[in-house]
This record gives sequence, structure tokens and C-alpha cells, in this order.
Amino acid sequence: DRERQGMAKNTNMRWRLPLVCLLWELAMIVLFGVFVRFGAEADAHWEEEKREMNLTSDMENDFYFRYPSFQDVHVMIFVGFGFLMTFLKRYGFGAVGFNFLLAAFGIQWALLMQGWFHSFKDGKILIGVENLINADFCVGSVCIAFGAILGKTSPIQLLVMTLFQVTLFSVNEYILLNLLHVKDAGGSMTIHTFGAYFGLTVTRILYRPNLEQSKDKQGSVYHSDLFAMIGTLYLWMYWPSFNSAISDHGDAQHRSAINTYCSLAACVLTTMAFSSMLQKKGKLDMVHIQNATLAGGVAVGTSAEMMLTPYGSLIVGSISGIVSTLGYVYFTPFLESRLHIQDTCGIHNLHAMPGLIGGIVGAITAAAATEDVYGKEGFIKAFDFTGVYQTRTPSIQGGFQAAGIVVSLLMAFAGGAIVGGILKLPIWGDAAAENCFEDGIYWEVPEDEESDVYHMHNPDKPASP
Amino acid sequence: DRERQGMAKNTNMRWRLPLVCLLWELAMIVLFGVFVRFGAEADAHWEEEKREMNLTSDMENDFYFRYPSFQDVHVMIFVGFGFLMTFLKRYGFGAVGFNFLLAAFGIQWALLMQGWFHSFKDGKILIGVENLINADFCVGSVCIAFGAILGKTSPIQLLVMTLFQVTLFSVNEYILLNLLHVKDAGGSMTIHTFGAYFGLTVTRILYRPNLEQSKDKQGSVYHSDLFAMIGTLYLWMYWPSFNSAISDHGDAQHRSAINTYCSLAACVLTTMAFSSMLQKKGKLDMVHIQNATLAGGVAVGTSAEMMLTPYGSLIVGSISGIVSTLGYVYFTPFLESRLHIQDTCGIHNLHAMPGLIGGIVGAITAAAATEDVYGKEGFIKAFDFTGVYQTRTPSIQGGFQAAGIVVSLLMAFAGGAIVGGILKLPIWGDAAAENCFEDGIYWEVPEDEESDVYHMHNPDKPASP
Amino acid sequence: DRERQGMAKNTNMRWRLPLVCLLWELAMIVLFGVFVRFGAEADAHWEEEKREMNLTSDMENDFYFRYPSFQDVHVMIFVGFGFLMTFLKRYGFGAVGFNFLLAAFGIQWALLMQGWFHSFKDGKILIGVENLINADFCVGSVCIAFGAILGKTSPIQLLVMTLFQVTLFSVNEYILLNLLHVKDAGGSMTIHTFGAYFGLTVTRILYRPNLEQSKDKQGSVYHSDLFAMIGTLYLWMYWPSFNSAISDHGDAQHRSAINTYCSLAACVLTTMAFSSMLQKKGKLDMVHIQNATLAGGVAVGTSAEMMLTPYGSLIVGSISGIVSTLGYVYFTPFLESRLHIQDTCGIHNLHAMPGLIGGIVGAITAAAATEDVYGKEGFIKAFDFTGVYQTRTPSIQGGFQAAGIVVSLLMAFAGGAIVGGILKLPIWGDAAAENCFEDGIYWEVPEDEESDVYHMHNPDKPASP
Repeated sequence: DRERQGMAKNTNMRWRLPLVCLLWELAMIVLFGVFVRFGAEADAHWEEEKREMNLTSDMENDFYFRYPSFQDVHVMIFVGFGFLMTFLKRYGFGAVGFNFLLAAFGIQWALLMQGWFHSFKDGKILIGVENLINADFCVGSVCIAFGAILGKTSPIQLLVMTLFQVTLFSVNEYILLNLLHVKDAGGSMTIHTFGAYFGLTVTRILYRPNLEQSKDKQGSVYHSDLFAMIGTLYLWMYWPSFNSAISDHGDAQHRSAINTYCSLAACVLTTMAFSSMLQKKGKLDMVHIQNATLAGGVAVGTSAEMMLTPYGSLIVGSISGIVSTLGYVYFTPFLESRLHIQDTCGIHNLHAMPGLIGGIVGAITAAAATEDVYGKEGFIKAFDFTGVYQTRTPSIQGGFQAAGIVVSLLMAFAGGAIVGGILKLPIWGDAAAENCFEDGIYWEVPEDEESDVYHMHNPDKPASP
Repeated sequence: DRERQGMAKNTNMRWRLPLVCLLWELAMIVLFGVFVRFGAEADAHWEEEKREMNLTSDMENDFYFRYPSFQDVHVMIFVGFGFLMTFLKRYGFGAVGFNFLLAAFGIQWALLMQGWFHSFKDGKILIGVENLINADFCVGSVCIAFGAILGKTSPIQLLVMTLFQVTLFSVNEYILLNLLHVKDAGGSMTIHTFGAYFGLTVTRILYRPNLEQSKDKQGSVYHSDLFAMIGTLYLWMYWPSFNSAISDHGDAQHRSAINTYCSLAACVLTTMAFSSMLQKKGKLDMVHIQNATLAGGVAVGTSAEMMLTPYGSLIVGSISGIVSTLGYVYFTPFLESRLHIQDTCGIHNLHAMPGLIGGIVGAITAAAATEDVYGKEGFIKAFDFTGVYQTRTPSIQGGFQAAGIVVSLLMAFAGGAIVGGILKLPIWGDAAAENCFEDGIYWEVPEDEESDVYHMHNPDKPASP
Repeated sequence: DRERQGMAKNTNMRWRLPLVCLLWELAMIVLFGVFVRFGAEADAHWEEEKREMNLTSDMENDFYFRYPSFQDVHVMIFVGFGFLMTFLKRYGFGAVGFNFLLAAFGIQWALLMQGWFHSFKDGKILIGVENLINADFCVGSVCIAFGAILGKTSPIQLLVMTLFQVTLFSVNEYILLNLLHVKDAGGSMTIHTFGAYFGLTVTRILYRPNLEQSKDKQGSVYHSDLFAMIGTLYLWMYWPSFNSAISDHGDAQHRSAINTYCSLAACVLTTMAFSSMLQKKGKLDMVHIQNATLAGGVAVGTSAEMMLTPYGSLIVGSISGIVSTLGYVYFTPFLESRLHIQDTCGIHNLHAMPGLIGGIVGAITAAAATEDVYGKEGFIKAFDFTGVYQTRTPSIQGGFQAAGIVVSLLMAFAGGAIVGGILKLPIWGDAAAENCFEDGIYWEVPEDEESDVYHMHNPDKPASP
């Protein structure tokens, strides 16, 4: 049965996938060999460096300021996103496994791309723990886009998308952080807005009119929903680390964590409220709980390190939970039926809209900043109003923040359209519509009892031999 | 079928749950707006603060002393407790989801309640990472109580219980820590003893004589037991962080982690021993492994930061594993049949008895303290024998520690009785006895293969269309 | 049915397991009582110590340098190894549960054994966070060996093996680190090479000619493969913490984490490439993804803290992924059919071969070290070329590193043979060949729907009453 359907399109990865993986890994090795070296704090010359910089303790090594947060972010990318997408009844291997593949490639390429833009010195990219975090962040935007096309693409398509998206992400990030001098520590704009609208554009280009042929596989089963909750909870719990991971040492990291903690807590309550309210029988929907509860983390991604204040965070979190849940109920069906945007995981509700909210809240919070609230030094430090930027005022900063949203959107639409076009080429081995959301196309799947039952209850499908 | 049973009681949450969630979140926003501000270490004025306090490094920010432990505690509350309770075959959504809901509300309310008692200055509650940890701790006591009533209450009841329990927890904590000047860093008394006896009292008041009608759903299935082990292991692994999270910087945090590590290791062996011994065929019981292995963490909750010593920890852990396993085999059935206490997760064995052990061990360890063992300065620092307490002797401290147990018990019984009475009101939408332990009442449940099988094996229940 | 088979061999653990657990725990308590005390940084005298050592901040306590890494390692041992082995369809309880048991005993015994060798002062073992990490490391080697015999041994056999393996590990580690003065921070030799060849020797001695009788239980089911991926991902994500946990403060920890991160990322791509390439239909195999993706962490275990450089790490990771995947496809069947080595989890591919690669890469990296690359001070610090070793050259160090591999292998073979012989005694209650890989022998297993289905589809097996 599976074989027959597979024949419609050639989904055999045997030579294509290995070739791409091996050649690209070889390219990584060569490029790392030419460009990447340890930064001062990871180099064995650190002892001398320490003396020169008058540091009295190894504790001053950035490793100890950021490594715990790095590990939390790492868990979010691999377990968080990976398991969040296991909700589909027969696409758990693809969700976790392809996420693993694209992220493992993406972080290498991101170390290079971001390195050239931000850590390039005397012909070498000097890396440390902050680069690892930024690479994970960059890949996070690819994981988000993956959510839109989950179940409908081949692993090669995902790698190709990763290659381009990481590149575009780095360009966009450079424009925002360096040219516009925008603050976006938790990536509401660079990660979420960009990643989500990029993914939505890609899935629009890859529109499959016959996707209802695999409708029976687009749902969850009881235990796949529990697996997905593992992803949800790790994203939710570690989001304070995500938003604070690359903030300035000291109060900024501390503040980012608190704001994010508050926003996420509020978001859970409004999500539960609207999930129940929008159902005739008032029952809660796991799709909302798995996703909309996270919108609060997205929506304070820009402003968390600012003096948003705990109650400000509660307000932002509350609103984003409501918007996100409404999106799942009303907006996702509309996007599919009217705009032909098939968004498997609903990233429009979890990342796109909350990302926009995050960008706007960041612009407002920046524009509203005063020396009174931040203190004279804190004000300069929080917004890096030094050097050529020392004459910038909060309201101008707010304007640039808003410009950052627009740039991210434009980059996402343009980039997504181009990459979508590339992915549409008939050479990448994607599955036919009736085989979407089915691990059996790209994975050796155990012929287990469950599968027997499945066939038993679908008498039109013959049991496997 | 489900519908018919549902009609017996109105379990429709459509307006009640949203109303409670939204109004309470609104209240949080208003109260946070009036009261909650960033503490000095999270405020943008930190640069000036640092200079005033003569701190040479951002590393001195409390964030770096406690944030890794905070994240571990956070995982324990949301994944640890949440997944530990997924062992029931058809209540995984409720276990993880309601735990998520009540904890997300509880931490907000706890920030306020504990803030008024402990961080109130010039009309504002000033928060930092330690407040986040304490809020998680406080909610931990609600998660414990939830274990007793798991499967038998509506989400609104859980929110109402959370509101009251967090309030009472904070009062009890204030009496113990501030009035009695008791040490309880890992919360044997404030979290476990109080939380467990509170929950047991509530479930006693809510006694359901016909609960055997849902007996078939009170067990586990193979994979639900594995999900529960995720909860168990995260609680077990991160418990050293739990008990050390708010200890004094330096040796106290270090010592708490070591003592807890040792106690938990010993506990696993005695639990396995008794689990096997108490079975005719010597087979191990997952209920014991999932729960009693954690008793060692509870039982050193008070004394871990004291000079309990590693072998002392092994002794305490060994005993608590035995007591807890015996409790599951002999005491839980007794509680249900004789005292009408229906304790779904057996919190009496995992939290109540080990919590009492923990309080007693703490009192003894405190009473046995000497300047010789702690050093002159260490002795004063360990017990805060400063100011009005500088004349306190170890034996007097031991007495106050013991008084802390009694106060916690009284607060738990009295508070549990009142809150149980409130929850008994017929307005909260709890399910009928035959619908307990069933996600379908409050959740949209996927009509999956598993469920088909379920119906197939229960021919009296019609299969879903 | 199960009963009848069980009668063939007496697998009843009722008195044997409790006796071993309780007596050994008692022995631990006595030995800890005699020997184990808090180290200076965990002792209440720390205040005085701090003054004597002229430390200005509590941050200088080793706890803050290592505790976050310790917790990551802890997760790897209990969740990582535990869940990695849950891939078998009916051995999830045994995988997680027995791993829990042996590790909980092992860390206690390792604290003693390693303590006598490395932390013994004035008749006492003084412990701190580094001892906890080392104890977890030591137990890691037992978890590896467990992978070879998974499903074929009784819990008592596992405890007996743990007792001996921890002892031998500590002796081997002492020879390598103290006598040969070898560097092996991530344990390519001491943990992986030793642990894997020890386990393979044990399983060789315990060879079961009739194991195909339980062939139907040696596979996975869909959800058991997802549970295993939880283990895989936690091992993969936290491996940078594993390899850096006990490196020198500062640059060495920082560098180890970066090298490991790079190696693991590369390893994923080559594993995916070869997994697809070696299948006629190009489909990915979960066994490879679950295991071979981790080989990159093993293979930089010795060299990660050296100046391996990021591109060097990519090369090592790439190669180890290829070797490991090839091992699963070609070598494991060969080992079983020709050498009678039944390696349930394929530890030869994940730990043995990558461990050897790790040892060799370490020897080469050490031999190639120059003062130019490391800096004068960094060079001495990286290899501890002080005291009696101050005249050692890199090439001599490389030779000693190579000797360390040989010693580890010899210890593993000799030790494995002896311990295998002990485990072969017919007193330990292991199951008959037809009952291997079946939780029902040692665990109370819920009679769930799944199991009903299982029986239903196997009409020759009567349904349970």
C-alpha cells in the first residue's frame, strides 16, 4: 500500500540525502578550518589574557555568565521544538528527527554566517559561548518555519531551507542590530517575526490543493499529545533563559528572566480561558495548551531586558495568550481556506502574531524609556547609547525599533518567496499529498501492535505482511 | 455515553472557567501594578547600586548564585509534578494540564503573598530571582495537594484551592521563618508537611463513597507508567537544587546539594528492596519506584543545609524509602477504607510522612549543633543567631524547629477543612464518581486508535462514530 | 503463560534482591560514617577557610564553577541512559528502573572508591561537587556496560556487576590519571573504552545460544522509539557539559564545551547520511539516529579540553558518526554471529569504537601540542606539566596517552572476564532465553489495552485472566 503510493513520487533519499549531508559537512569543515578559531576566553592563552585584562578570577570568563542559559536554550531547540511537533499521530520520527538534522546543520552554518558579521577579527571568526547561543537562536527561526511545513517536505528540502534561511536570518539580524542599532535580545523580530513569516511564505508557495487526502493523519493520538507537552513545557520553563541569554551581564539578564517568567505565567491563564470559552462544551483543547501558552515568551522577546516591569509583562502575556488562542480557532482555518496557507503547527498564532506584538511592545517600551526609570548609567547601558549613538533619544530608538519590524517582515516575505520557489523544484523528493504526515515515507517504522490495530480498524487498508 | 453521564452533573466549564481565569488574571495585573517592582539587582539602577555596595563584578548579582537552581526547581514543578501524575491511563491531559494551570496562577499569587511578608519596602514588593524560587516552592505545596485529589476535581476547584492554599502557605511560612525563626530551606515543614496534610484533609472532606465506579480508570497502562517516570527522574535528579536553591551563598548551598544527593541515592535502594519484599512474587511495583524513591529528598528538606553529614543523609534517605514504600502497601488502603481518605497519588507516603521525618531530623540536627562542628562563624551563620536571636542555643532552636512541625500540621488541618468545605459547594462543576479519572470530561480528547480498542474491549460502550 | 516459562528458572527476587539492597546500603552507611566528610568548600568552616585563602567572594566556591554542569551530567546518567534504553517494546520499566537502581548504588560506592584514591586526607574522604561529578562519570561506565546486557540479566546481576565495575573503574582511572599522568576529562578511555569493552566481555561470557526465542521482543514499537529519543537528545544536548564538567576553571571548561558542541553537530549529519545510504530504499533508521549521533561526544572525550580547534572537532565528529553507523549495519551482526557477542544496544558502535577514536585523537592532539598554540602558561596548565612532570614533552605525553588506551582495554577484558564468570553462577535469578526483554519477569506490569491487543493478535497466547 505504502509502496504503491510512494511510487507516484520518488521519495527515495538513498543518494540525494547522503550526498547533501556529506558535501555540506565537508564544506563546513573546510570553512571552519579557514575561518573559525577559539575566542580569547576559550583559548589556552586565557591565563595571559586574564592578566592583561586585570581579571582576578576565572569566574569573569563569559562562560560562567552564560553557559547555564546556553544549555537551557539548547534544550529548547532540540527537545522543545522537536517534541512540540510530535503531536501528529504518525509523524513523531520526522518531527524529532528532522528537527535534529536541520538544527545540527544550521548551528554550524550559523556560527559561520553570524561569525562573519559579528565576530570577525584579522581574518578569523573567534567564537565563545555567546556564539553558540546565537547559533541556536538563529536555528530557532528555522525550527519555527519548519512548523509551518511539518509533514509535507523531504529532509533535503529542510536542509536547503535551512541553508538559505540561516543566511537571510544573519543578514536581517545584521541590519537590525548593527545598522538600525535595534535591541532584540529575545528575538521577537529577528527570530519569531522573521522565522514565522518566512515559513508561512514558504508554505504558501508550496500549497498542496489535495492535502485533505492525508486528513486522517493530521490529528493527534492520546500519547502523541503527551509527547508534545514535553516540548511545550521545556519551551515554557526555559524561555526566561532564552530571553536573557545574551543580555548584558548583571541586572539585564536578571530583569529579562523575571519579565519573561511573569509574561508566561499570565499567558497560561488567558489561554485556558479562551480555549474553554470558544468551545460549545467548554472543553479545553490540547492544541491551544501546547502552543498558545508560549505566546507570552515570544511577545516579550524584545522588551524583556528593558524596564517593562512585572505588571507590564503580565499585560503583554495576557494579551498574547488571547490573540494566539483566537488565532488557532478563527485565523488558521481562514488562512488555509482563503489564503491557501497550510500551517501545520499554527506558527502564525504562536510566533507570527506574538512576534509582531513583541516588536511593537519593544518599540513602545524603548520610546517610553526615561533616565529617571533607568538611572543615568543604566539608561545608556540598556540601549547602548554610546559612540555614534550617544545622541539618540528614546523616541528615535522607538522609531528604529518599529523599522526593525518592517525590515524583518520584508526580508521574510522576499526570502520566503525565493526559497519557496527553490523548494518547489521537482528534484527534492517530497511526498505525494496522500503520503504527507506519515513517517513511513522517510523512516524505517517498526511494524508494531499499534499499527496492526490501525490497519484492523481501516479494513480498506491491507495489513502489512 | 460520556454525554449521558456528564448530564448527571454539569461539568461544562464554558463560562465558569474563563470567568475565573480572566478575572483573577486581571486582579493579578492590578495588584502587580500597584505593588510589584524590580529588586535592586534586577533594576537598571544596578550600576549605581553596585558602586554603592562596592561590588567589583556583575557576578556578585544574586542571579548568578541562584538562577541555575531556579531553573531546576522550575522543571520540578512543571515537568516533575506534572508528569509524575500522568501515570493514570486516561488522565494525562488533566495531570499535566491542570498542574500547568494551577502552578501558573499560583506563582503569581505567591509572588504577591510572599512579597508582602518578606520583600515589602516603602509600599512596594521588590522581586528578584529568590522570589521566583520561593513562588515555585509555594506552588510546589499546591502540586502536592493536587496529588491527593487528582482526577476528582474540576479545574475551577483547583484554582480556588490554589488561591487559598498559597495564602495559607504564606502565613504558615511567615510564622515559621519569621516568628519562630525556624530553618527550613528545602521545605520539609512548610512545603511537604503542610502541603500534604492540607491536601489529605481536603480529599477527606471531598470523600466520594462511590468512587469504585471509576475503578477501571484508576490504574496505569504501560506507556503512562513511562511518562510518569519522566516526572520521577526530574524530581529525583533536581532535588539537590531544590534543597539548596535558597540556602546561603557558598558552603550552605554546596552542602545542601551533597546531603540531598546522598539521601536520594540511599532511598532508591531501600525502596527497591521493600517493593520487592512486600510482593509474593518479588516483583517490583512501578508505583513505589515512581514515588518512594523521592522520599529521601523530602526527608532532608530541613536539615540538608545543616551539618547533617553524608552518612547522616544516607541513614535518613534509607529510612524514608522504607517508610514510604510501607505506606503505599499498608497505609494507603487503610486510609481509604477506615478514614475515608482517598489519596490518588499517595501523597501521604511521599510527602506527609517523609515531611514529618524531615521536620524531626531537622529539629534533632539543629539541637545537636555545636560550635566545634560548625566553627564559630559558621555556627552563627548557619542558624542566623544574630540580633535578637544571638542568645539562642541549639537545643532551644531544636525546640522551635519542633514547634514548626506542629504549627504546620495545625495550619494544614484547619486550612484544609475550611477549603475542603468551600470546594464541596455544588457550584464548581466537578464530575460524577463514574467520570472521575477521565480526561474526556474537561478536555477535547482525540478519537484515536487506542480509544477504539478501549471501546472494542468494552462492548457495552458504543464505538465513536 | 508467563508463569509457566518463569518456572523454568527461578526469577523470584523476593528475598535475594531485598537482601542485597539492604545489606549493601548498610555497608555504605557504615563506610560513609567511617570515611566520608564534607570538603572545605561544603563545610560550615568555609567562612574561616575563605579568609585563610584570601577569597573575596562566595563565587570562588567550586560549587558555582561546576554545579550547573553536574546537574547536566546527572540528567545524562539517569534520564539520558535510562530513556535511551527504553526503545525495546516491553522492557521500558527495566531500562529506566534498573538503570536507576544500579546508578543509585554505583554513585555511593564510587564516592568511596574514587575518594580513597583521590580525596583521602588524614583518614577521611573529603567530598565536594567535583566528587559528585566523578561518581556520576564512574557510574556512566556501568550504564554503558548495562547497554550490552540489557534485557538479559536480573537486577541482582546488575548490582553485582556495578560493585565490581566501579571498583575496577577506579583502579583503572587511578593508573591513568595518577600513574601515567594522562589527560582524559571527558573519559574517552576511562569511561567509554573501559565501560564498553568491559560490558562486551561480560555479554560474551553470558552468551545465550537460544536468544532468538525472544526475538519478537527485541524490536521497538512506535512510541518506545520516541521515548528513546528523549534519552538520545538529553545525552546529545548535555554532552558539552559532560566533557567540560571537571576541566580546569576558565578557558578549559569553555573550550571543552565548544569542541564537543561542534563534534556532535557534525556527527548528526554523517550519521543521517550513512543511515540513509546503507538502506536500499534510503530510509532513515531510528537505531542509528538514537545512537550514532552521540558518537561525536564520545570521540572528543579526551581531546575536548585541548586545543583541538572547532574544525578539528568537526572532523572527529564526522568520522565517528560514520564509523558508528557502519558498526550498527555491519559490525553488530558479525559480533553476534561470529564472536557470540550479543550487544543489545550496540554499545560497540556507540562507545567502544568512538572511545578508541577518542583515545587516539587525544594522544595525537597531546603529541602535537606546542607552546606557541597554548601559550607558555597555558601549555603547562593544560597538561599539568608541573612537579615531577615538568620535563615531560608533548610527544612523551602522547605516548602515555596511548598507553592509557591499552591499559583501559586490558583492564576491561580482564575485569569483564572475571565479572562475567561471577555473573554466570546460577544463583542470581536471571530469566530463561524466551523471557528475555520482557518486563513481566521482574515488574508488576499493568494489564492494559495494549497488552490485550498484543494477545489478541497472537492467538496462540492465552489472554491474561
